[in-house]
Amino acid sequence: MVERQRADARRNYERILAVAEEEVATQGADASLEQIARVAGVGSATVRRHFPTRRALLEAVSQQRVEALCARARELADRKGDSRNGASRNDNSGNGNSRNGEGRKALLEWLGEVVAYCVTARGLAAALSYDEGHDPVGGNSCAAALIEAGEPLLRSAAREGTVAPGTTVEDLITLAVGLALATEHHPEPTARADTLLALAVAGISPERA
Amino acid sequence: MVERQRADARRNYERILAVAEEEVATQGADASLEQIARVAGVGSATVRRHFPTRRALLEAVSQQRVEALCARARELADRKGDSRNGASRNDNSGNGNSRNGEGRKALLEWLGEVVAYCVTARGLAAALSYDEGHDPVGGNSCAAALIEAGEPLLRSAAREGTVAPGTTVEDLITLAVGLALATEHHPEPTARADTLLALAVAGISPERA
Repeated sequence: MVERQRADARRNYERILAVAEEEVATQGADASLEQIARVAGVGSATVRRHFPTRRALLEAVSQQRVEALCARARELADRKGDSRNGASRNDNSGNGNSRNGEGRKALLEWLGEVVAYCVTARGLAAALSYDEGHDPVGGNSCAAALIEAGEPLLRSAAREGTVAPGTTVEDLITLAVGLALATEHHPEPTARADTLLALAVAGISPERA
Repeated sequence: MVERQRADARRNYERILAVAEEEVATQGADASLEQIARVAGVGSATVRRHFPTRRALLEAVSQQRVEALCARARELADRKGDSRNGASRNDNSGNGNSRNGEGRKALLEWLGEVVAYCVTARGLAAALSYDEGHDPVGGNSCAAALIEAGEPLLRSAAREGTVAPGTTVEDLITLAVGLALATEHHPEPTARADTLLALAVAGISPERA
């Protein structure tokens, strides 16, 4: 019986969190808690039992999204690894490095998702009222987790030679944060940030070979 | 006699503003008004007569800096024009377009100065407490002036083919603002923003030809 109650509680927690994530993505950090309870099919009291404050809910949403991005980095790194192994059978370069741009593709796909996250996370960050004077990248445990998760993707692209030499994952995360902040009040922030990311990926004015 | 007083007042105004600009550049928007008066060699009352509030002084500094950047854009566009005319005598391409990258050089020099300005201007913007929800680029008269001033530089680089097709001055200004915002709490924000600008100029991962 206690087992059953625990399983119910866990399911409710996960359902509320999943709904909250969607509501926050579309409505921002002011998403209605009543609406979240309604869509999750639970009472407001149940929401409050799991997440006593709006801040607790937003923190859980934020953590969940960062964990999903970290998992996504691992997934993309593995997928790239698989296709690299597949490609290397037909690869006579002998140095084991894939030159087919799979690493680049995986890195850029992930970077696009990081930018999209940052665009919605601005509202989260503000709502969680991070410390004033808080470094939005360097001093942030979410950023640290993302930087660690992105390392294998960056290394693969670097091995291919498809990423600018000396680029760090922190560079990429800082750029993502900057694009999100600079497009905050644009009518279509995600599209605007994507355009600017594409520009930075291709280069505003690359040196000619 | 009134003439003389007016000339003195104008000189004081300009001296205070020049000193204030330097103090704000090094100390930020909290620069000491007493220190500004001291360095300018005037009394605090004289500072207050010209700039009744800190906000009035910061607005004047900010406007002066944006005007200087606009003037700089014109200067660089003219210089580039001169050297292009010089080069075209030895240019047999016949289409009148310079391919020697002078336009690129001028544009990137200016962009670097815009980023450096944005890095110090963050503090100014906060001190002037711009409207909440205010678009840091689109809805800003400073940004509008910069965008207009940058157009000839961008056009020259575009004619050379040394800038990514479709790039707008607004893209460049938005990027500059983003780099400034994302590096705000870095120990060396100007150097950090420069590194990221160089990365975006060269491209994180340009397509191979």
